[in-house]
Amino acid sequence: MSGYNGKILHVDLTSQSITIEQPPDSFYRLYGGGSAMGTYYLLKNMPAGADPLGPDNMLTLFTAPPTGAAVSGQSRVSAIAKSPVTGAIGDAQAGGFWPATFKRTGFDGIVIRGKSETPVYLWIHDGEAELRDASHLWGKITGEVQAAIQDELGDKKIEVMQVGPAGENLVRFASIINMSNRANGRTGMGAVMGSKNLKAIAIKGTLKTEFHDLAALKELARWGAKNFEESDVYTMGLYGTAETVAPQQEDGGLPTRNWTSGVFEGFEPITGETMSETILKDRDTCYACVVRCKRVVEITEGEYKVDPHYGGPEYETLATFGSYCGVNDLAAISKANEFCNKYGMDTISCGATIAWAMDCYEHGLITSQDTGGIELNFGNAAAIVTLTEQIAKREGFGDTLAEGSARAAEKFGSAAQDLVVAVKKHEVPAHMPEVKRSLALIYAANPYGADHQSHEHDPNYTPDWSYTDRMAEIGLLDPQPPDNLNAQKVRYSLYTQWMYSAMNSLCVCQFVFGAAWQLYSAGQFAELVRAATGWDFNLFELMKIGERTLNLQRAFNAREGFTKADDTLPKKLFQPRKGGPSDGVFVPPEQLDNALDMYYEMSGWDPEGRPTRLKLEELGIGWVADAINN
Amino acid sequence: MSGYNGKILHVDLTSQSITIEQPPDSFYRLYGGGSAMGTYYLLKNMPAGADPLGPDNMLTLFTAPPTGAAVSGQSRVSAIAKSPVTGAIGDAQAGGFWPATFKRTGFDGIVIRGKSETPVYLWIHDGEAELRDASHLWGKITGEVQAAIQDELGDKKIEVMQVGPAGENLVRFASIINMSNRANGRTGMGAVMGSKNLKAIAIKGTLKTEFHDLAALKELARWGAKNFEESDVYTMGLYGTAETVAPQQEDGGLPTRNWTSGVFEGFEPITGETMSETILKDRDTCYACVVRCKRVVEITEGEYKVDPHYGGPEYETLATFGSYCGVNDLAAISKANEFCNKYGMDTISCGATIAWAMDCYEHGLITSQDTGGIELNFGNAAAIVTLTEQIAKREGFGDTLAEGSARAAEKFGSAAQDLVVAVKKHEVPAHMPEVKRSLALIYAANPYGADHQSHEHDPNYTPDWSYTDRMAEIGLLDPQPPDNLNAQKVRYSLYTQWMYSAMNSLCVCQFVFGAAWQLYSAGQFAELVRAATGWDFNLFELMKIGERTLNLQRAFNAREGFTKADDTLPKKLFQPRKGGPSDGVFVPPEQLDNALDMYYEMSGWDPEGRPTRLKLEELGIGWVADAINN
Repeated sequence: MSGYNGKILHVDLTSQSITIEQPPDSFYRLYGGGSAMGTYYLLKNMPAGADPLGPDNMLTLFTAPPTGAAVSGQSRVSAIAKSPVTGAIGDAQAGGFWPATFKRTGFDGIVIRGKSETPVYLWIHDGEAELRDASHLWGKITGEVQAAIQDELGDKKIEVMQVGPAGENLVRFASIINMSNRANGRTGMGAVMGSKNLKAIAIKGTLKTEFHDLAALKELARWGAKNFEESDVYTMGLYGTAETVAPQQEDGGLPTRNWTSGVFEGFEPITGETMSETILKDRDTCYACVVRCKRVVEITEGEYKVDPHYGGPEYETLATFGSYCGVNDLAAISKANEFCNKYGMDTISCGATIAWAMDCYEHGLITSQDTGGIELNFGNAAAIVTLTEQIAKREGFGDTLAEGSARAAEKFGSAAQDLVVAVKKHEVPAHMPEVKRSLALIYAANPYGADHQSHEHDPNYTPDWSYTDRMAEIGLLDPQPPDNLNAQKVRYSLYTQWMYSAMNSLCVCQFVFGAAWQLYSAGQFAELVRAATGWDFNLFELMKIGERTLNLQRAFNAREGFTKADDTLPKKLFQPRKGGPSDGVFVPPEQLDNALDMYYEMSGWDPEGRPTRLKLEELGIGWVADAINN
Repeated sequence: MSGYNGKILHVDLTSQSITIEQPPDSFYRLYGGGSAMGTYYLLKNMPAGADPLGPDNMLTLFTAPPTGAAVSGQSRVSAIAKSPVTGAIGDAQAGGFWPATFKRTGFDGIVIRGKSETPVYLWIHDGEAELRDASHLWGKITGEVQAAIQDELGDKKIEVMQVGPAGENLVRFASIINMSNRANGRTGMGAVMGSKNLKAIAIKGTLKTEFHDLAALKELARWGAKNFEESDVYTMGLYGTAETVAPQQEDGGLPTRNWTSGVFEGFEPITGETMSETILKDRDTCYACVVRCKRVVEITEGEYKVDPHYGGPEYETLATFGSYCGVNDLAAISKANEFCNKYGMDTISCGATIAWAMDCYEHGLITSQDTGGIELNFGNAAAIVTLTEQIAKREGFGDTLAEGSARAAEKFGSAAQDLVVAVKKHEVPAHMPEVKRSLALIYAANPYGADHQSHEHDPNYTPDWSYTDRMAEIGLLDPQPPDNLNAQKVRYSLYTQWMYSAMNSLCVCQFVFGAAWQLYSAGQFAELVRAATGWDFNLFELMKIGERTLNLQRAFNAREGFTKADDTLPKKLFQPRKGGPSDGVFVPPEQLDNALDMYYEMSGWDPEGRPTRLKLEELGIGWVADAINN
């Protein structure tokens, strides 16, 4: 008999109690794990309207059945909580070795409730779990905490997931960090963890993770190794996600000076190629992955010395601290990145918030009086470094920016608010709907705010539909030109959003598995799950897990009062970009509005974007309709 | 490069012209073939409101990419036309050798328009097609026509699909017959063919049918042969579909005396076991199928001599001519079956129409004056034989009954109409919604009228969910008790209807492939298509083809003016059965009404059950919304 036997750890920090749940196989088959399972527990147990930073909020960390298999792209962990950034569902994914190791502790998920009176950390090892005092770790940066925990537990191989000082300080966009350089970055999951006085989760796993069909997993791994060099992710291995800088620039798709333009005249120093030729010390990887997309950079001389322990900047980091801010100083950006990993902050929201402040400064809406004397012009590399540290520590002007651009803007009036580039207060990442139009819809509609890894972008380069064959696997037979939001583009967006949502619930990397250019196809993704579990798993179930995930998250938001009015874009994106190939391009509001209506109806949601009871019943989760009083 | 290269024959009988279309691979991948492709051409080319028996109606015959592979259950052909029974889409499936042989002519579908001035037959051989005079065949029975065509074309191996005299005579429920004993039985496709003066389609195919992965097909065949004896269809091979008689009786699910009761006290002589022990001469099969479910019966003595050339009765035939009519004379039923195959008529509608007439006779609503002297009491075996021949020839009372029960009833007043057991004028087959409640919904809602092979019945026996594992492949993780029509039952009905609709478009046998008790699982069904085509085909695409099929057919009906009012059950099913385990049981009208509302909403249809534009767009067939002005 096949199936999946998992264990879920329930931790109540208020009562300091720990219990273990062993759900039936069918629970895993319905939800997968990851984001769907996390949202499940929030809908079941978090009271509606909970303060994201109060004890009623919950934080879940879930892997999925394939996690820990020796195949590229499976070592991922999903963090779910009500977001202190958006007030909606929060969702952030991270890779590394922590997820695969966690599986070897005998668990596949953690559901955390309440708030500890004093700082604690959770220590999980081979089927056991305990809360330990973390008072001595409070205030320490990630690298130090990791070393201290390894020291006190007497094992250098212990994996540590943690919040840095930013999470302790309730920086809204604080992240959860593992290995000191992998982040559940977005939507403020670190602030939630910090608010609970939970400093870290340390794990040691030596149990054997059982998989149904090791031969099939080995074959998948072999196929991946063999086909990697010919695949579209090979260059991502060489240059990191930073490989994207140059093509984005070429297409007018590199957000520059807080989205004033889509071209950054001084982009060359911040490309992946430049990084590889200059400060790159090593390429790092996640458990069992051939891609090695992670950067390790080191700078030993000059104004900004950068410690390789904290990794290196991703594309998004190079953009938000770089082009967003008009900065092309790779050392300064790398230093800001190091701070984000040391202190535990999302590089996208952090960089984008500083960029917004610069835009305000340029417009005279924020002055040096506000900034504590910092001349916050675009291009000021020193300022981004200084402010990043100030934000983490909530010092000076950083205390204001630690609230994120949307909340900070409330202090500076409507003109400043008009310069915010965020959806649901969540700063927009560095892919432009002006040149990849489906992003307009998904940025607006995504349940956890603007996100660039929630669907398959329509290509901003001369359409290369060599991967149309692969997209046919999810029913998309025709190329989707990037310049419209018609019904077929809405369908394309929705179908690929289901796929990406499934990746978040089955916890695979979106560079390694997917329906387009990724190393493995959608069918191979289903095969991974089949081999791991023994289920006759297939793309119908997989896509339904994706749709179920999306509906769970939209239902959560509906319960929190979100409506269509929240599914919109910031004013600035309705105004034209300046210069380059995207000169004059903007998202027409009526085009977005129309697309949203189509998207809701296609999704089986009501005109406010709320899942209907019958859609939830169709997905086998009718209980959600009761949970949200729909 | 993988993919499918097919050819479609277009025959205009009015102009006697023949053209060949070679659609792109993506056309096949979107629609499959069979019912979806047939409905596609009707929506594209048949004017709305066309007379089903006039030249504007079209008749399509489609196989699908897997047809002709040497694997059980793939030799099927789907007939689609506007139905002269329902006025809605007509849909009938048949097996045999014709479909596999047709593929070897180099074609995979025929689209027939117009009307020939004089009788013709279509002769297709190895990539060529011609219309030939059929005046000399007109009026002849199927066996004679087959022999005559084989003689005149000089090849005994020529396969003939044809209408019998019933189709010529426009008996509403005339069938299309191949091999003299396989029928595209339901919804009057033979009447449409007859109305066009198209007597037959004779084929000879010696071309090689290309398949992408012969090794995989061979492996599927090997697996099927190996697992057949342990499978749930093994006894169907032994006893035919007639194996169902005894368990239906046991559960009160054998419609008796025009649905007055669900138990037939004299059922023993008409069981599959009895048939095997008495008149069974041989077991017949379709191309490459291990199941051998087809019956060949022979009776050489007594009142009813039965020619084995015309096969033997299915379960439905034993029920409609048997228990429906209170008749347990196996010889008489077999004779009626022989007539249906000789003359080309649907045994279900024919038997059920006679049963309705008997019910009226018992109630004094029809008298022996009406019947030309036939004493039409329940149990009159001779009457069913006589009337069957009369219907085919439109002689005597048969001329009235040739219109089907619903139209015949119009002659005899409302009390007689209240005894009609039909949906959309389509007689209800022999599975009872009183004991398998999902049938109530699907009988009412199915686009081509009451049909028992349009979804997976909830079991009427003590639920044996040993096959729950298989249903999990299409997302159905929980057993569905047979006694409700709640939201989860509606979902179960809809998902399995998608599966069955996919079977009709990919042209596989519903006994051999499926998501439950069938020989091959749903996943193996997808594998069949993958191996045949080289597409990375999967259950997501497969289920979407099913949903697309259903939506195409509902859209066709919407264009013809069908609304929710047409999706209902006959009065009699809202009244209690009498006797046995189903004593007192009936379908509550408000339960059905509620289920329909849920079913429409889950389907993405409007409150009248019409596909919305956005649902059609979601399925990649937005053009249909324009075609039906929605």
